[in-house]
Formats: sequence, structure tokens, C-alpha cells
Amino acid sequence: MKALLYKSATKQITGEAKALAFESFSRPVRIGLLGCGTVGTGVVKLLRKNADLLARKLGAPLKLVAVADRSLKPQPELGLTSSIIIRDPLELVARDDIDIVVELLGGREPARTAILKALASGKDVVTANKALLAEDGERIFRAAAEHQLAVGFEASVGGGVPIIRTLREALAGDRQRAVYGIVNGTCNYILTRMSEEGKEFSEVLKQAQRQGLAEADPTLDVEGHDAAHKLCILVTLAFGVLLKPKQVYTQGITALEPQDIACARELGFAVKLLAIAKEDNGAIEARVHPTMTPVSHLLSSVKGAFNAIYIQSEALGSSMYFGLGAGQMPTASAVVADILEIARRRLTATRLVASPLGYPVQTLRAAPVKPIEEIVCQYYLRFMAADQPGVLGKIASILGRHRISIASVIQRERATVGAVPVIMRTHEAREKNLRMALREIQRLSVVKAPPVFIRIEENL
Amino acid sequence: MKALLYKSATKQITGEAKALAFESFSRPVRIGLLGCGTVGTGVVKLLRKNADLLARKLGAPLKLVAVADRSLKPQPELGLTSSIIIRDPLELVARDDIDIVVELLGGREPARTAILKALASGKDVVTANKALLAEDGERIFRAAAEHQLAVGFEASVGGGVPIIRTLREALAGDRQRAVYGIVNGTCNYILTRMSEEGKEFSEVLKQAQRQGLAEADPTLDVEGHDAAHKLCILVTLAFGVLLKPKQVYTQGITALEPQDIACARELGFAVKLLAIAKEDNGAIEARVHPTMTPVSHLLSSVKGAFNAIYIQSEALGSSMYFGLGAGQMPTASAVVADILEIARRRLTATRLVASPLGYPVQTLRAAPVKPIEEIVCQYYLRFMAADQPGVLGKIASILGRHRISIASVIQRERATVGAVPVIMRTHEAREKNLRMALREIQRLSVVKAPPVFIRIEENL
Repeated sequence: MKALLYKSATKQITGEAKALAFESFSRPVRIGLLGCGTVGTGVVKLLRKNADLLARKLGAPLKLVAVADRSLKPQPELGLTSSIIIRDPLELVARDDIDIVVELLGGREPARTAILKALASGKDVVTANKALLAEDGERIFRAAAEHQLAVGFEASVGGGVPIIRTLREALAGDRQRAVYGIVNGTCNYILTRMSEEGKEFSEVLKQAQRQGLAEADPTLDVEGHDAAHKLCILVTLAFGVLLKPKQVYTQGITALEPQDIACARELGFAVKLLAIAKEDNGAIEARVHPTMTPVSHLLSSVKGAFNAIYIQSEALGSSMYFGLGAGQMPTASAVVADILEIARRRLTATRLVASPLGYPVQTLRAAPVKPIEEIVCQYYLRFMAADQPGVLGKIASILGRHRISIASVIQRERATVGAVPVIMRTHEAREKNLRMALREIQRLSVVKAPPVFIRIEENL
Repeated sequence: MKALLYKSATKQITGEAKALAFESFSRPVRIGLLGCGTVGTGVVKLLRKNADLLARKLGAPLKLVAVADRSLKPQPELGLTSSIIIRDPLELVARDDIDIVVELLGGREPARTAILKALASGKDVVTANKALLAEDGERIFRAAAEHQLAVGFEASVGGGVPIIRTLREALAGDRQRAVYGIVNGTCNYILTRMSEEGKEFSEVLKQAQRQGLAEADPTLDVEGHDAAHKLCILVTLAFGVLLKPKQVYTQGITALEPQDIACARELGFAVKLLAIAKEDNGAIEARVHPTMTPVSHLLSSVKGAFNAIYIQSEALGSSMYFGLGAGQMPTASAVVADILEIARRRLTATRLVASPLGYPVQTLRAAPVKPIEEIVCQYYLRFMAADQPGVLGKIASILGRHRISIASVIQRERATVGAVPVIMRTHEAREKNLRMALREIQRLSVVKAPPVFIRIEENL
């Protein structure tokens, strides 16, 4: 059946080859894969399973000719025979029988060297390596531009969600104003379960680890660094600006408490780890932190391990892109889409038409980054205070002196012993002022613990 | 300021021109516009407003050289001077100083002839004309393939939502299983207001017309034909299958009653006009009709004039694309994205890399279309019945004989006079059986009006 489909497609192609030269080729496009872990194996599976479909779309077969992996054992049922497995990634990129190198090693080295060598020897590259692109993207994209080669990186942000192409192509005629991303599935899964079950962070994390939804060392995810890496890539695509992870204010979800998630819901908000970027008169605002979003907003409906990127553009207005941001096959689908796109160009031997970033790399600019103290937003505040009269007045007057006005207050039932929570929602305030006020409030003898605050994005 | 930005970008480009030849051009890419109504004016505005951004991305300016419109008056503030305005679209497409023709005439003729003549004379085409593409797409895409030219049609489905690119490129390595689209903003707006305010269809339609959210003659929208046109385009992209609007089962929203929308909500569902396509062993299921979707599903959260396309794919799983599906600037943003993409290729004089449909046009196939009687889904049913004992039994036993089992029943409060509604939700059933059962039930003397049924998509 498979052979039949492919044969008939091939026949049709051959029959009209003259009129439709750009669709008829016979030589395969040769793929070399660096790293055959979870996603790499997914790519191998997908290339194999959809070989006929891909050949029909491309007009030529895609052929996996080499896999470099430190420890991979042959899996003949996937076509991973010992003849195509090697150990050294740098040996693979030096070969002259490879058109496209797919880098799924992760981490900085040897991925960086392998990609640069692949480009230098005339190979296009596909990568899912967000950490590398966030840190060394400029170097890599400059090398690609010099050699007029492509770097496909759809899988680096949002997994299978086509946010890279969307920013580079579909929104390219428009100006982006703001990007709000749920770009870390592990965090969104943990927050969803904390919210739905009222459980502590540490408990849900352990369950997520058992289910394979969080890494053994979850730091990169739960501390927000992975989201910050992805935000750097999104900022370059959306605003044509180069940004490094260290320039992104980054706060993870480890300190979040179930009581604040419950209070947020009572106030009509969900708590999400958002990666937020805005452009404001040439300056960039870029931050990753737990954020309260209105429950009625589409982003608040993004549950579990799903990702979503919500974009505000001048002409288009709001748009959102939703799907699985991680996992073997969703990520593999993005890698294979990049392979197909590059293979098409490779076959027609045409020059690279667009920069992989949408903006020619030499027109990318550095931009001032707004310090977190300068941002203006609404805040959720929780104070653990002595259960005695006058406390609210003391807190409110300090806030007032720092020009922070209160939108609403929830005072919890009286405690039999110890401190009671005082919950407030502020109007828009400058973070510098808020921090000064909180430092002052913390020094009050009636306040029994460091104040908790969560930023609110209401008008997205 | 504008000039400065552009100059500095140009300077940078020139400075590195040797190493980065593919990004440095000077001749403008010349645009001819057919039809300058709402969307056309939006395109003119966007090309003008974002001229520097577009030139930075492209490495060359985009230049509007001619506009053909029956009645357009000069608007010098938009650059629409009398020297570039002509009346005859066929005169425009015959000119030799135009690279890309943007067709925004709408309707079948003269749009069809103009597009074919533009392609025959070596011009690429951008169009938002879904009715034309649904009816004559094959002819147009064949002509484009013969001449190795592009047809950009991102604006034809979902307005500014990049669903065309997404299906053609981002999901190209994967197999699509099903597409569920809210692709008509007018209908979604009307249904949202009927649901939120409990108002009648005709009342909300009138208000929508007053607000410019519905046409004076709303037939194409509210009867579902516009959605069916768009579904034909989506089916070709998702499944590589040619489909004509007359093959799509199409039912609009004009007969929907507020009481059914209210009952749906009570059962945990929203009512949406969905365009649904599935592939099942080579056969295509394609239908447009009011559909009940679980309130917790992301599609149910798509309110007002927004569009969303929800796609199930084998490797990626679920993904959704959300944004404004109509309106001047959202639609213009999609048109300008297509112009930019085509201009990039045009400038590098490279051959067309991919078919505009993702599949080479000669590999597109016709496929059997499943008749609506053969679909299997759950149903919402409402019977207006005499308020007397035994009615439910009679209805249920007829349904049972036709192998339709009941999942739940709501019986409304007793009426003082006349008929009372009996609401049922069925398990999955074949539509042929349901229709036979309903005909039989309608003949019961205790049933006072034709039964109402709405299809439920629960597992999307």
C-alpha cells in the first residue's frame, strides 16, 4: 500500500516533469542526525513513517545517512543499522555525503562547534537547541548568512507550535507590540495541578518527575531559565533585537504557594509562568515570572503540559498559537517540518530567500532593556499580619505614601493563633515603588513574614 | 526619524553586501492592486506605514505602482494619487512594470480572469478570494505551477490567522487527522451574543449589521457558505485533496433558537458554527453546521468576531491558531505577509521552492466524500411534546428501535398550556438512523413541532 502510493505519486510527478520542473527530482536529500535521544528517535520514526507523504510533497526522498550518538545501539526496525551509527558528531559534520545536519545534542558544546563546522562545510542546519541559540544565536546566524545557508529552529520554542515561522513569515508585515508565552510545559503542568488540586509545589513536582513530565534536575525549567532562553529567541523574531538570557528578569515557580493560587482564583485570575516581552519606544521589556491572568482570558485556559504564545500586533491585534511544547513526537514534527522546508530549497539549488530570523542578521540591533524596577503593572499582595485592629491601616498608609493605590482587599477569617493573611490587589504601580513599600511594610512589627507579591497582567 | 532608520538599515546592508548578497537589492518590488475597498485600503495603509520595516526585512522597497478600482477617488495622504489609479483590472495585469498582483476584487469574475492573465504574464499573485479559490482553485494553482509562480492566499482563511502557512509548512511533516474551524467571525459574533444575552438570531443579526459586523445581505455568512468555501481550502492543505463547496454538507445558524443554546450550556456545551473535516481511510468527511463543543474546550472560549482553527495531527497532537478572521487591518496583515514572502523570492530570482498548496498540484487527488447520513456523532435533541404521561417512553422507544441510546434527559417544568420541551443527549449514533427515528417521532400525535437536533463534538 505504502509502495503503491509512493509509486503513483512518483509516476504523476514524472509524467508532468517538463512543465513542473521545480517539483521533480530524484536524488535523495541526505540527513545527518546529531544526538538520538528522545526527540532524535522521534525524528527517525517520523521520517520513516511519513516517508511517502514527505516524498510526495518534496518530489524526492529524504534519506537518513548517518547518526552520531555516544551510546546509541542499532535499532534495525527504525532503520538505525550499525552501518549508519557513528559516535563523533564532528566526524559526521565533516562528511561530504550530507546535505542537512539535524542537531539534537542539546547543551552548548559540542553542539556549537558542530553547527558552525556544518555551516562552514556547506550544510544547512536544523536545531532544537534553545539554550545554545539564546546564548550564541548571533554567532550562528551570522555564520549561516555568510554561507547563505539555513538554520531551522522551529522546535526550539513551543515544540510543535509553529511560532518561529509565524513570527518570521506570517506576522512579518506587521509590528509586534507584546509577546506573552506559556513556553515551559513542565511549569504549566505543575501550576495546573497546584491550582486544581490545591497541592504544594514540591509534591506536584515529585509526581511530575515520576510521570516523566519533569527532569530529575528540574532547575532549568522550574526556575524559569528555559523560558528565558525561549524568550530571547522570540524577542529577536518579534522585534529584530538581540537579547541574552542574563538580560531577562527571571523568576521561577518554586516559591509559589497554593494559598496564593487559590486567592488568585477568588479574585478572578489564574497563575501562569509567563515569558513576557514588550517594545516601548525602542526599549525592550523582557521578563519571566509567575503572572496572574484573568480567568476569562484564553491564556488562562491553557492547561497541563500545553504551551501557548499570545501576541499583540498593531494591524492584526491579538493572536494565539497553542499546542504541545515538548515531547517526542510534537517536537519531532517541528524538526521534520524544518527539514522539509530546507530540503525543498536544497533540491532546487536556489539561494536562501529569507534570513532565518526574518530580519537580515546584520540589521539586528541591541536595545536598552528596561530594568524590572521600571516596569508598571498591577500587583497581588499577601501580608501575614497579626490579628489586631489597625494593621490594614498601617499597611495601606505605607502603600499610599509610595503612590500605590489599592483596588481591593480580602481579609481572611480570624486565626485562633498567630498571623492572618491580608490579601490586596493594587492598581497599576511602578515596581520600584512597590519594592520600597514592601521593604518598609516588612519592618512593621505586626507583619510576621516577608510579603508575597505576584504581578498581574490584566489587559492582555 | 523614519528616513534615518531606513538609511541606517540600508547602510548596514551595503556595508556587508559582499558577504550577504542575498539580502542586498536596490530595485523596488512593484505591486499592482486590484480592488481598493476596505481590505485594499488596509493594504495600502500597511505598506505605507511599515515601509521602513518591510524594506529592512526585504533589503529593497515595496512600491505600489498601480491600483485598479471602479470607483476609487485619489487619496494623496495614502499615496493613492490619480497617476496610479486606473479602472480596468485587466489593463493592470497586462502591464509590464508590475511584479506582484494583489487581487482583492472578491467574487468570481473578473477576479478569475485577472489572476490567470497575471500568472500567464509572469506575475506572482496574492489573493484573499476564498470563494474563487474554493471553486476554481485547481485551475489557478495549475496555472501557477505551469509558470512556476506563487499564489499567496493566507488572507483567504482566518484573516490574519496564519493557518495557510501553518498547514503548508509547519505541519507539513505530519499527517492531519481532523480540522475544526471557527472560520466565520460574523456567525461567531452572533452566536456569542445569542448565548450571553439570550437574544433571538434575527435581533442580534440586525445589531451586527448596524455595527458593520454583518453584511447587508448576510446569506453567505449566516447560511454557512463562506465557512464551506474556507473548509475546501483547508481540506486541500490538510489532506492534499480537492474538494468543491457543493460537496460540503452546509447548514447555517439562522434556525438556531436561544432556548437550545441555553440548554446546551446547561449540559456543559457551547454552540459554535464549526467547519469540520476529517480523513477516514482515504475518504473525506467535510461539513459545516452548528456544533456543540464542551465549555472547557479551548474552541468554546473563542468569543465574538474571533476565529480559531483547531487541528489534530498524528505526531503533534492538538494545536490551535486564534485571531481576528476579518476586518481591514487583520486581513491586510496577511496580504502584506504574502507580498513580503513573494517579494523575497522575486528579488533573488530563485525558482519557486514549494507549491503554494504544500502538495505539488499534480499530486492532488479527488477523494470520496462521506455523505452526512454516514457520519457518527452524539446529538442534542429537543422535542416539543404534549405535557402528559408516557411521552418520554414513546420517544425513547422509537430512538431505541433505531439503535440510538440516550445519555441524559432534561424535562422542563410543566407548562400551563401547550407543549413542553423534552431535551435529550444521545450517545454516538449514525445520522441516518437518527433521521429515520426523528421522522417517526415527528409523526407521533403527542409531538407538537418538528424535532430539533444539534450535533455534538465531544472528543475533539
